Amino acid sequence: MSKPTILITNDDGINAKGLRYLISVMRKLGDVTVVASEFPMSATSHSITVRSPLRLEKITEEDGYREYQCNGTPVDCMKLGEQVVLRKKPDLLVSGVNHGSNASVNVVYSGTMAAVIEGCISGIPSIGFSLLDYSSKADFSACGSYINEIAGKVLTEGLPQGVCLNVNIPAVKAEEINGIKICRQSKARWVEEFDVRKDPRDKDYFWLTGYFEKLDNEPDTDQWALENHFVSVVPTNFDFTAHQEIARIKKWQLNGKSIK
Amino acid sequence: MSKPTILITNDDGINAKGLRYLISVMRKLGDVTVVASEFPMSATSHSITVRSPLRLEKITEEDGYREYQCNGTPVDCMKLGEQVVLRKKPDLLVSGVNHGSNASVNVVYSGTMAAVIEGCISGIPSIGFSLLDYSSKADFSACGSYINEIAGKVLTEGLPQGVCLNVNIPAVKAEEINGIKICRQSKARWVEEFDVRKDPRDKDYFWLTGYFEKLDNEPDTDQWALENHFVSVVPTNFDFTAHQEIARIKKWQLNGKSIK
Repeated sequence: MSKPTILITNDDGINAKGLRYLISVMRKLGDVTVVASEFPMSATSHSITVRSPLRLEKITEEDGYREYQCNGTPVDCMKLGEQVVLRKKPDLLVSGVNHGSNASVNVVYSGTMAAVIEGCISGIPSIGFSLLDYSSKADFSACGSYINEIAGKVLTEGLPQGVCLNVNIPAVKAEEINGIKICRQSKARWVEEFDVRKDPRDKDYFWLTGYFEKLDNEPDTDQWALENHFVSVVPTNFDFTAHQEIARIKKWQLNGKSIK
Repeated sequence: MSKPTILITNDDGINAKGLRYLISVMRKLGDVTVVASEFPMSATSHSITVRSPLRLEKITEEDGYREYQCNGTPVDCMKLGEQVVLRKKPDLLVSGVNHGSNASVNVVYSGTMAAVIEGCISGIPSIGFSLLDYSSKADFSACGSYINEIAGKVLTEGLPQGVCLNVNIPAVKAEEINGIKICRQSKARWVEEFDVRKDPRDKDYFWLTGYFEKLDNEPDTDQWALENHFVSVVPTNFDFTAHQEIARIKKWQLNGKSIK
């Protein structure tokens, strides 16, 4: 049986330790192609590059392994990987391992998860992995067995059309992890506090800062799972419809216009 | 009664005709503050600027109207508008009028709708408006009565926590619009076809191109509504969980790890 084709990307850039770790785990599961941004691309969400051209540079090619860097976003990397490098759908797309949480509302801002969602839109079984440690020197060693098992399961079972996985791993020792929990995305938000400074020409500039505010701590959420040392797995889709609101809004009366 | 405070942004930039149109409609409804990007920011999705500082420049200040430009994304604009300019939650956030569709899967890539979703995360009643005409010279005159009615309704009724509106308007004459339809986001995808070119130094570069592929044409979708000359209104949220899959994935057997 031929080895599965695995496409890897991330949003921390081609040199990130988390990407290197993910590559090392995936090379045991299949033929690996990496396409990642030359620079860190955190918080680029689902951005695509439409106003400037993309560049793609081959870094490594050996038996069962190829690595490219590009000047685009994580979603650009996923698209270039499928369309230009592989010229076919891979059997699996994995993104990460992200340095820092993509649980809860972080999924909305994440470039790592945007690449996963783009893979899902394209019909590829896709998984994002994140470790709850923002440090560039984070220790990923506890992640391996979970990544291996979840990716292996998706390679054999697939995922339903329109569904991908958002996997977050607590930053604790391997023996302190209590197992895997299938969850929903918890409710939370980032509360902004801009840091206002003066430049040498006495003009204001602003750094985005803020803190994470939990609005939900139910035991079926990813946030609860992580705080209780479980690996959280959220089945994720890209239907943004608030289905439960359709019937209610249909009852609105607007002057002289038919609502259906 | 004091006038409502309305914050406006977009992703086509401060000079876009669609923004100017939206401002003209909103000034009849309340006190307006505009914060928009100095350059076009289409397809920047939910990007935020974390690696460089933001700049904010006042363009206009008069009674009931203020206008600022900034060097950030639409989501940055929304955050700066609320936190730095208004220093309070506006009664309404509107974004657009976008030059081109944000119906169906386009909502995932849209900077216009990302600003709306960010407003929603922040607890502000938020609406995105888009006209199905990508031209910078598009004729927005048929949009006014629909924008006025929908924004007016949200100002009086509010929206439930965690729900915003994605409004798309067909590019037809006012008298050809059949009314308003409350819809779900249709299934579709962009099929990529990179345009590969050689630069003067004989190196490849890539332009992202592609075509929109419909995967769904049910009469309860936004795509159907627009093709049948209705204004589509999709209640939109930022819970990406595929709730219906949680029970199924809980049945997975993973070696030696507890799944809960």
